[in-house]
Amino acid sequence: MSIIPVESFAAGRWVAPGEGALTLKSATDGRDVARIGSSLDYAAMLDHARRVGGPALRAMTFHERAHILKALAQYLNERREALYELSYDTGATKADSLIDIDGGIGTLFVFASKGRRELPDDNVYVDGAVEQLSRSGSFIGQHVATPLKGVAVHINAFNFPVWGMLEKLAPTFLAGVPAIVKPASQTAWLTHACFRMMIGSGLLPEGSVQLISGSTGDLLDRLGGQDVVSFTGSAATAAMLRGKENLLRNSVRFIAEQDSLNASILGPDAEPGSAEFDCFIREVHREMTAKAGQKCTAIRRVLVPQAHRDAVVEALVARLDKTVVGDPREEATRMGALASLDQREDVRAKLAVLESEARRVFGDDSRLSGVDAERGAFMSPALLTSDDPDGAARLHEVEAFGPVSTVLPYRDLDHALQIANRGEGSLVASVFTHERDVARQVVLGSGAFHGRLYFANRDTGKEATGHGSPLPHMVHGGPGRAGGGEEMGGIRGVMHYMQRTAIQGSPDLLAGITKRYVPGAQTREGKRHPFRLRFGELESGMTLWAGPREVTLQDIEHFAEFTGDTFYAHMDEEAAKANPFFPGRVAHGYLILSFAAGMFVDPDPGPVLANYGLDNLRFMKPVEPGAKLKVRLTVKQKTRRNDDYGEVRWDVGVYDETDAQVAGYELLTMNAM
Amino acid sequence: MSIIPVESFAAGRWVAPGEGALTLKSATDGRDVARIGSSLDYAAMLDHARRVGGPALRAMTFHERAHILKALAQYLNERREALYELSYDTGATKADSLIDIDGGIGTLFVFASKGRRELPDDNVYVDGAVEQLSRSGSFIGQHVATPLKGVAVHINAFNFPVWGMLEKLAPTFLAGVPAIVKPASQTAWLTHACFRMMIGSGLLPEGSVQLISGSTGDLLDRLGGQDVVSFTGSAATAAMLRGKENLLRNSVRFIAEQDSLNASILGPDAEPGSAEFDCFIREVHREMTAKAGQKCTAIRRVLVPQAHRDAVVEALVARLDKTVVGDPREEATRMGALASLDQREDVRAKLAVLESEARRVFGDDSRLSGVDAERGAFMSPALLTSDDPDGAARLHEVEAFGPVSTVLPYRDLDHALQIANRGEGSLVASVFTHERDVARQVVLGSGAFHGRLYFANRDTGKEATGHGSPLPHMVHGGPGRAGGGEEMGGIRGVMHYMQRTAIQGSPDLLAGITKRYVPGAQTREGKRHPFRLRFGELESGMTLWAGPREVTLQDIEHFAEFTGDTFYAHMDEEAAKANPFFPGRVAHGYLILSFAAGMFVDPDPGPVLANYGLDNLRFMKPVEPGAKLKVRLTVKQKTRRNDDYGEVRWDVGVYDETDAQVAGYELLTMNAM
Repeated sequence: MSIIPVESFAAGRWVAPGEGALTLKSATDGRDVARIGSSLDYAAMLDHARRVGGPALRAMTFHERAHILKALAQYLNERREALYELSYDTGATKADSLIDIDGGIGTLFVFASKGRRELPDDNVYVDGAVEQLSRSGSFIGQHVATPLKGVAVHINAFNFPVWGMLEKLAPTFLAGVPAIVKPASQTAWLTHACFRMMIGSGLLPEGSVQLISGSTGDLLDRLGGQDVVSFTGSAATAAMLRGKENLLRNSVRFIAEQDSLNASILGPDAEPGSAEFDCFIREVHREMTAKAGQKCTAIRRVLVPQAHRDAVVEALVARLDKTVVGDPREEATRMGALASLDQREDVRAKLAVLESEARRVFGDDSRLSGVDAERGAFMSPALLTSDDPDGAARLHEVEAFGPVSTVLPYRDLDHALQIANRGEGSLVASVFTHERDVARQVVLGSGAFHGRLYFANRDTGKEATGHGSPLPHMVHGGPGRAGGGEEMGGIRGVMHYMQRTAIQGSPDLLAGITKRYVPGAQTREGKRHPFRLRFGELESGMTLWAGPREVTLQDIEHFAEFTGDTFYAHMDEEAAKANPFFPGRVAHGYLILSFAAGMFVDPDPGPVLANYGLDNLRFMKPVEPGAKLKVRLTVKQKTRRNDDYGEVRWDVGVYDETDAQVAGYELLTMNAM
Repeated sequence: MSIIPVESFAAGRWVAPGEGALTLKSATDGRDVARIGSSLDYAAMLDHARRVGGPALRAMTFHERAHILKALAQYLNERREALYELSYDTGATKADSLIDIDGGIGTLFVFASKGRRELPDDNVYVDGAVEQLSRSGSFIGQHVATPLKGVAVHINAFNFPVWGMLEKLAPTFLAGVPAIVKPASQTAWLTHACFRMMIGSGLLPEGSVQLISGSTGDLLDRLGGQDVVSFTGSAATAAMLRGKENLLRNSVRFIAEQDSLNASILGPDAEPGSAEFDCFIREVHREMTAKAGQKCTAIRRVLVPQAHRDAVVEALVARLDKTVVGDPREEATRMGALASLDQREDVRAKLAVLESEARRVFGDDSRLSGVDAERGAFMSPALLTSDDPDGAARLHEVEAFGPVSTVLPYRDLDHALQIANRGEGSLVASVFTHERDVARQVVLGSGAFHGRLYFANRDTGKEATGHGSPLPHMVHGGPGRAGGGEEMGGIRGVMHYMQRTAIQGSPDLLAGITKRYVPGAQTREGKRHPFRLRFGELESGMTLWAGPREVTLQDIEHFAEFTGDTFYAHMDEEAAKANPFFPGRVAHGYLILSFAAGMFVDPDPGPVLANYGLDNLRFMKPVEPGAKLKVRLTVKQKTRRNDDYGEVRWDVGVYDETDAQVAGYELLTMNAM
């Protein structure tokens, strides 16, 4: 095989490895795989992103960007076989590649879907509720978010060359911010191959993504307050980077996701033989061996009830003993190689440190067979245990970033949480329990130390996604040692690349800014009933007033009899009067809703296809017999769903003859284009 | 008057100023006012907060903490006269004190109210929606937040001795995190007096608040990953503090709110003589002179259409000319003194820098009369203007932190936004316009540079709260030069002191953790109808199944006739069949709701007082004539409102005879205790 030139993609051009480029070696046989290291004009890259990429992205709505992400995911999905091939030389098995490559593509799909379902078809994101800042409502508040006008610099770790790139790119792209991707050199040929496909797809606007293969030079020294650095890797590198004077001076956002000493807790209720016990053993074993333990979420500290420590060790050793370490291309192989010989050297050194506080109960490299452990970075998984988790210090501080875990016995749940918290912040902790009380106690006692808590038991069964798998829906990151950052978490991850701004002003200006009606904003009545207008013809603020209709006592009694809802407040004057909220007999809330619909509905076939829901209904004033109701129907917001129809959200107010509002809600209809 | 000893409150004891204490002088007459500087054991303070304050706070629910905040606000409100008295020597007028003292107390009230309305009566905060992570729903996700188990260190600026403390304390206390407050020494006697009242109230749990009067010593070097630093002040100090190796290494949260070069824009539509123009002139003048311009939100750059520059300058000069600068105790005084002679020296030096790029059109200290400008830090407000806002550099970088502003002419709105953005991030920008399109263009073109955008015009009138007033409901902070932090913003501000954790697990464990029913969690049917149970007897998960009831074609026709809702999908088989969502004629959504209520309502007087609303209603499957409906009513969540009643949120599912869900919603009732 020829040596791959790992190019950079800078300011719209591919730049080949130049003088001083490094040679990258296969993790499995030490042969030369690729060359990396380009000489780049970082100022020009930033300029290209800011002047070409940013404006192109911001010209699109969230939905348009989401559609591109979906198309990109489909494009890569059809080509992923080529990536699996390149992945073996990173030491990864096919199962490992599924996590990296399919996991990365899956993340694109989820963000594409969330972007269309949870973000508007616009470029202003509305964050939270309207805030009432004045008595009469002429001055109100609303938070919005808009894309930062800078660049996102993504600095990725070696262990997930594809997922690591895509999990950062998806929310950045959705936010409308151009990105410069810098993968760790060690495995960058795989990132590079995926990146080439992305550019080859022709789907991405010019300047929206660039790639640095090699050093970032003075890139970080050129960032400003509209830029973001998102870093995954070691705590030491993170501390060095985030302390750069330029980043501090300009308050550059720095999102760090650092390797941490994640714990897994076998619940006090999980006896050997229980579903939870078995599931725990499988999970710890899986986390030790997947990606040869090179996962920032891997389980480093295995916390078990004292009484079950021996049973846990025995069960883990039995599984480890059957684990085939070898060439990742072979189907029988369960665990491949570490990413490089250097990496293995580092893990061995850390293992030696851990052994000063714990004894090794499994893991002898001499038992590896059929592999060339001199040229390939193979090593046996290693299991340790300690009798004194409280006395130990390094076990809670030092991470061997490979297939290495330590079993620690605990006395009771409080003690387990104390031990877990000594990691001083982690990406994830898992708990195997079937007890609600244990789960709540873990959240209250240890939640603040973890970005994610993963609970598994007999109920979650096969659907549980695994301790070590960050999901695009859930935040990934954690406090303290884990870096204090957050990634993904659905739309939360998109917000890291946007600026939240508090908007204060009149309802009418707010409606203009957000393109959605706000109570108090101007409305306008047209000649045609809004149910006769197609999706594209409707505009927020268009209004229909209908009614009045009187609500008689006979109506109330009839409704009660018809529906069976004979609640005393509708039927019994004396009893209703005794109720602190009612003046006497009142109309049913659902009668008010039904009469309102009767007033505003236009009965003939037309663009309104269905009423599919209703939100935020509040009854504000009791409706007594004799009240004359009228109703206001105002277009609040439109969201295109597909080529055929879109969702219309209507603000509805029901008023009585004194113009007092008796009910308010948002009605959802599906309307034809 | 005697000299005030400004004490610290450390680990439960008052500590008097010791050797090496500094003497603080009155801003108005230079007389000695106070002494400050104690020798403190910072390790003991942190230990006290972590071991005594934190556990005491976390033993309470959000509502319990909110009640304390409200009582504290009432307590301070009754004693605020004493604080006004002490405030004059900081240079503040009575109007300035209202901003600081009443503003601070008002912030407590708002957080108390929001805590009760927007947070649960529990100690686990539920963040966002349930995430469906599996097909059958046995494994789901939910984000929660719990209080950090560390300490919040609040480092405050000199300009708002009371508000500055309370706006940080309120969300911290509500979150359940103990605080150590460090006011700027210059005006700390006022903070100290307010703090003494707070301790004197007996309302605050031991260890929940401490006060450092003087230096923070090695406090920051002792912080870890569960701690937070919240800083208000200059960019230079912020950069120095956040770069501390210990803070970087432990990913200590650092919230910075820095003085920035805030802009105010007179809209292109706001002609002289318009309401917007007049309102703009008043606002710029107010921001220049309130607190003698010593506000982090003050308007430094006044952006106006070229054509109106002279009119703006003329109007501002006329108002400034009538502004009485003098002893803040005098009623005629409009503007008091700067905080100190040093502060005035600094402002004068910065003013000289600005004058290298702009000319002064108002502001001659020699015209001050009746004040002792040698011993008191009085100065005249100064207005500058420049013809070349694009060529200028320092006007966008250098802030004179006093009554100093510069008028800059712009060509068109794009140019105005370009100039505004050259501030590289600000706390707030204001815009005076009556045009929706201008407002939206500002948000899209400049929103990412500002933490807050304040729009005022003829519609907002007297209810508008002012460019310079951060409100507890809205975020305060901004990107880049403004520090990149956020404070307040309602519950958003509370989250800075909590850790968000992604929870994954079975619905039943999630329900146990959050104390609210989640679809899929265990339910239980009791012997009594849940409408017969008092608030205190209800528990989440309690369930009633009711029905079945058949929906006949006759029911549909009758409902249509009765309510007037004769939409074709209910009435015309042919037309309904042509609709992509319906198989033929279907029941009205409100008929389904009404029949559901008819099935589950228990009619006699009892603890359920009223149905006051409904959320998240979705119709999932069309209901055809002949369908037999049944309904499930499950207690989802309870929220105590007062001693008499509380809100119960019910999860309601309506199912047909095939057990397919046809509708789902959350019903809200008010229930007696």
